[in-house]
This record gives sequence, C-alpha cells and structure tokens, in this order.
Amino acid sequence: MGKEADATFFPLKVKGSLIKLVYFSTNGVDSSSSSSNESLAASNGDRGRHVLEGKLHFAKFETEKINDCIDFIRSKQLLLTGSQQHGASGSAKCVIKATGGGAYKFPDLFKEKLGISLDKADEMDCLVAGSNFLLKAVQREAFTYMDGQREFVKIDHDDLYPYLLVNIGSGVSMIKVDGPGKFERVSGTSVGGGTFWGLGKLLTKCKNFDELLELSHQGNNRVIDMLVGDIYGGMDYTKIGLISTAIASSFSKVISDDKELKDYKPEDISRSLLRMISNNIGQISYLNALRFGLKRIIFAGFFIRGHAYTMDTIAVGVHFWSKGEAKAMFLKHEGFLGALGSFMSYEKHGFDDLKVHQSVQQSPAGDDPPNGELNENQSIDCSVYLSQ
Amino acid sequence: MGKEADATFFPLKVKGSLIKLVYFSTNGVDSSSSSSNESLAASNGDRGRHVLEGKLHFAKFETEKINDCIDFIRSKQLLLTGSQQHGASGSAKCVIKATGGGAYKFPDLFKEKLGISLDKADEMDCLVAGSNFLLKAVQREAFTYMDGQREFVKIDHDDLYPYLLVNIGSGVSMIKVDGPGKFERVSGTSVGGGTFWGLGKLLTKCKNFDELLELSHQGNNRVIDMLVGDIYGGMDYTKIGLISTAIASSFSKVISDDKELKDYKPEDISRSLLRMISNNIGQISYLNALRFGLKRIIFAGFFIRGHAYTMDTIAVGVHFWSKGEAKAMFLKHEGFLGALGSFMSYEKHGFDDLKVHQSVQQSPAGDDPPNGELNENQSIDCSVYLSQ
Repeated sequence: MGKEADATFFPLKVKGSLIKLVYFSTNGVDSSSSSSNESLAASNGDRGRHVLEGKLHFAKFETEKINDCIDFIRSKQLLLTGSQQHGASGSAKCVIKATGGGAYKFPDLFKEKLGISLDKADEMDCLVAGSNFLLKAVQREAFTYMDGQREFVKIDHDDLYPYLLVNIGSGVSMIKVDGPGKFERVSGTSVGGGTFWGLGKLLTKCKNFDELLELSHQGNNRVIDMLVGDIYGGMDYTKIGLISTAIASSFSKVISDDKELKDYKPEDISRSLLRMISNNIGQISYLNALRFGLKRIIFAGFFIRGHAYTMDTIAVGVHFWSKGEAKAMFLKHEGFLGALGSFMSYEKHGFDDLKVHQSVQQSPAGDDPPNGELNENQSIDCSVYLSQ
Repeated sequence: MGKEADATFFPLKVKGSLIKLVYFSTNGVDSSSSSSNESLAASNGDRGRHVLEGKLHFAKFETEKINDCIDFIRSKQLLLTGSQQHGASGSAKCVIKATGGGAYKFPDLFKEKLGISLDKADEMDCLVAGSNFLLKAVQREAFTYMDGQREFVKIDHDDLYPYLLVNIGSGVSMIKVDGPGKFERVSGTSVGGGTFWGLGKLLTKCKNFDELLELSHQGNNRVIDMLVGDIYGGMDYTKIGLISTAIASSFSKVISDDKELKDYKPEDISRSLLRMISNNIGQISYLNALRFGLKRIIFAGFFIRGHAYTMDTIAVGVHFWSKGEAKAMFLKHEGFLGALGSFMSYEKHGFDDLKVHQSVQQSPAGDDPPNGELNENQSIDCSVYLSQ
C-alpha cells in the first residue's frame, strides 16, 4: 500500500457549496507495462507505457472552508506532480485541473497559498467524462433504488449510449450523452439542491444541508402538503389516475392552517421540500428521456448523496410518471463526476489512460451502508497509464 | 336590463381557497324563438324552444367565507329556478350544480341554510366544458402575453382540437382535449398556486394570496436566486444555451448569505417564488405538449388571475424551453372554467344550450385593465335555450 504522499494527479471540482477532490496515490511502485505487472498492461496492448498502480481517493470540503482543502493538499503533499516523479524538472509548471464555478473564483488563492495554477476544465465535459468512466470501468457502480432496496445494474458496454445524465447540483442539468465526448445539455431546472437548501435554510433553523436532509427522515409531509385525499374527502380520484395519497399541492395545507412558521416542525417542512423537489426533478427528467427516446436516466450530483429518501422519491417520481416504463438509476460515486472528469482531462499533461482493477475493486456490496453516504472514504484500485 | 332576481342557473365551483359562482340573469323578458327575438333563434334553427335572454355573471368568494356566498345567493334570490319560472311546481327540487373538492364538503351547509341540494358535477368534465365553451363561443377570449403585450388570438373552430389545457389551481392539471367531452388528464404537478401561497405564507407576513402576488411586482429575484452569471463570473454559458441572467438555482443565493428570513424583503421572496413556480409549470406543460404533438397550450386557473407577471413568466418559460416554437395562451375568464362547465351540466335539468351574443358581448378591449383582474365584475350577454 503506497503512501498518499506519492499521489500524482488531483483535480478539483469547486461548485456551489462543496469542493470535491479526486486524487491518485501510487502503491509505491512505479511499474511500466514491461514490468511484472504484465497482465494488466498486456491485455490492453499498452507495452512501453509507464504504468502507475495505486488508488483513486475521493474527498470533499465545504467551499467556505477552502483553506481546509488547501491544508489537506499541502499535508498530503499532493503537490508532487507526475512529471516531477518521472524525472521532469522540479520547476515544471504545477497544475490542478479544476471545474465548476469555483474554478473561476479561486485561482489567485491557490497561486498564493500553494504556488500552483488552477487549470479550468469545462464542467459539462468533466461531468460526462466522469459518468462515462464510472459506467464503463467500474462494476457495481450503477444501481436502481426502490422501497429501500438497492439493486446494481449490469450495463452492457456496447449498449450504454445514448442515456440521459441528470446532474443535480445547486441547479439541475439534463444531458443527453451519445458517446465519449458526444453530448448535449437538452434541459434542466432551476429547482435543485440549492433550492432545497436555500428554502430549507429560510424555513428551518438548520445550519447546513446535511442537517436539513437528515431531518427529513423523521418528517411527515402530510402535515404540510395537500393530498388528493384531502381534497376529495379521502376518495381516490382514479378516473384521472390519482390515488388519495398522491400530493395534489405541495405546501398547500399551510394555507388553511391558523399557524405560523414556528408552529411547524422543521422535519415536516424538510420532508415536504425534499418530496416536492425530488418528484419534480424525476418528472422533468422522465419527460426529457421520453422526448429523446432514452431508456436510461442516470441521476447524479451532490443533492442525492446516497440519501435513501431522496433516491426513493426520485425513483417513485420516474416510476409514477412513466407508468413503470422507466427506471431511475444512481451512481455510487455520484458526487465526484466533475472531479473524476477533470482527472481524465490530465490527458494533455502526460496522463494517458486510467484502468480500474476490476478484480480488486474496493467496497464490495457488504461494506456499503444501506443509506447515507455511499461515496465517502472510499477508494478505487486502479492503474494510471502515462504517455511517454 | 333585467333584475338579477330573475337569475335561473347558478352553478358553483368550490375548490381550494376560493368559491366561484357563475349565474345567469335574464333581461326580464322570457322570449321563445317564435317571439320578436327572431334573429337569434332562427339563425340557430331553434324554433319552438324556450329562450331566455340575459347575462352570465361571475362572482367569487373565499372558501372560509362560505357564509358570504350563501348570503349572496339568498340576497340575489338566485333560488328562483328556471323550472319555477316556467310554471313547474314550486316544490320542484332546487339544485345547485357544484364541482371541485368543496362540492363534497358543503352539501349539508347548503341544505341547512338554503334548503337546496348541491349536485356534484365532475371537476375535469366541467373544466374542459368551460374551456371549450369559451374558446368556441366567446370572441376575444384567448390571448398570448409577452413583454407586457396582450394579443388576442383568433382560433378557427375547426382547428381547435387537440389542445393542452393547463389548469393551475392549488395543484396543476394538464389535460389533453381532443374534442367536446373527449379529454384525458395526461400530466400535472403538485407545484402550483397552493405552493406559491403556502410557501409564501410561511416566508412572508402576507395575509392573503392577492397581497403576496401584488408584492411580487416590486420584488427583485436576483437577491434570492442564483443566476447563471453569479456562478460563471458574469459570463454567459452559451455553450449550453444559458445566458447569464437565467436562473441557475432558485433560492440558492440564500445559502451563502449570512442572513435570516427576516432580513429578506418579502417582495423579493414573492418574486422568486412566482418565477420558480411559473417557470416550472411552463416547462412541464411544454414538454407534455411536445410529447403529444399539441400546438396550443392554454393556461387557466386561479393562479394566473390575469396577473401580468405570472403570465409573462409562464410565457417566457414556454418560449425558452420550446426555443420559440410554442406559445402560451391565456383565457379572459380563466378562473371560472369549472363553474362555467357546471353551468353547462344543467343540461339534464332543462338546460339545453347556451349561445353567446357575439355582437353585444361585454368588455370590449378598451375596458380591460392591462394588468390584474381581467375576469372580475364582468358579464357576458347570452341566451339560454331551454328544452321543452
């Protein structure tokens, strides 16, 4: 197991309220494909290329704690670049690939504190590259979620494209992916994770996104939302396909209550917000998948974070609106698509390819928590191939 | 001009927070098609039928002030039914056609206070019948709205169907209308007028829906919403079709502000809410119109109320998402579709047909306020044809 100090590439994704960091640490051995690690390289026809074996690591920081991130990079000595390790001049330009809006905000800070440049990578390019990488290279990555059950989906590599990638960050982007590097942002909505946390912050005393999300577990949205049954006196309104427990109008029960904001439980408010937003995203995503004839909808982005109820609501939304014909799919490393994609963009800096060791991949099913953070403190065993 | 006491039919729509009443008052003359009022009847081939000439009136009441509505019905002596006027027994069953959820809630109250029965008419049937009636019978009814300009649309009767009817009440129903009595609820969203007022009530000190809506006029949503330009440092992100002034994430600017709810202006909150909800409805409506190949989208329901900024936001949403290919249309009597439709359903109670006097129709263009309530205190001259 290599020291993390041997890490080479460490792209950043800086957007909204979180900074994501993906970095690679070697196992301490700089192997080439002509070394003992023959099987891997040979199978890919990569003789003569440098191969670094190691792990991909995932880390995140709140944007307002940008200095923690900088300290982390310094403490891990992530500043040793690949080019330095491979005998290039120590004065070689040290670059961090970064994407997301923050890539435009923090270049001066990184230059000042770490003496390195932030190199902007296009956000959409990175998201798609990250998603394509995970879907093709990592087994047990994509899964469906329904009634508390996670089920991994095996995707035939030849049948991956086209698919709809729905990235739920502060806002939501819906991207039709037709192949490697071939994609188009076809839709989106401004009602996303930032809306959940923004409205949640105004409506509750929660101090952060995670606290608000956690609260929703214990909440009951029926206190806040008007259900079909509330309107039609408990009857299902089956003629129009609405059952009595469906939400007829989000936040509508508040109207006739003789109550103020402080009289409502924050957990109920959080649950109503989460259902409103998740359901809406599920619906708009399905309508776009339908429009372009896409059979797979992959939901990713920080809003999901492996949170069971969020995934469940999105999945139920897609199931409801598609009458069971479409299924929502999620990614285990959903929050790191952009950072992973900017990792891929090191290509121009000596990085050539990334192969995941399927056989020794971390996080077998048994290790994953059933709910909550699926993508924290995990690493993926892999090899980095360097061009000569 | 007839006394309103001569009114005959007065259906109700009771849903969510408002009760809508459409009633007919005669001009004081009970003419048949063989009377002097020849031109009207003859042109319609209605010889031998009873014709009542008069006006359709529109009124509304807050649901919690249901007693005001009952007093109004009593004061206008709306209890004189058509059958009584035409010599039927005074003890004939007196019926009010009612639709909406309230039709299930108030039958006992109406029986007790007025001695009359509420006869439930199917809500969706009524909405569609009301819309079809307005679109076919009333000139200068449907209009587009853009940049503060209202433009009436002439719809060829032979080319009316199919269209998408989007009824924005507390929740939103999207109905594909294929012909008279032929329709299907194809979609909807729980994010509607009830969400605007429910969230608005929690977030501001507003006492009612109209006050909240009024506030939005003076608001600036940029204080609350994260715009594309806020993320990308003022640059347009044209690659993905987003201009810097587009909303990237509703309510997201709140996240990084060191402020509490009380530090925000209610008008800014109201404006953000209105934009979020209107834009979302516009988007989902367009996607459904596209799905079913419908070229017209008609928006109606109490959320709109002729409110300029609401219509503008919906219209901009449809324009944006359709890249200018689809246009949002609105109805002058939008808030009364259900009540109008239940008026139509008197058919089984001696009511046969309703013809609008196009030539003497009320509310010529010049009388309409440019903004605000387009459908208040208006009446439509018309004739009611009674079956023998």
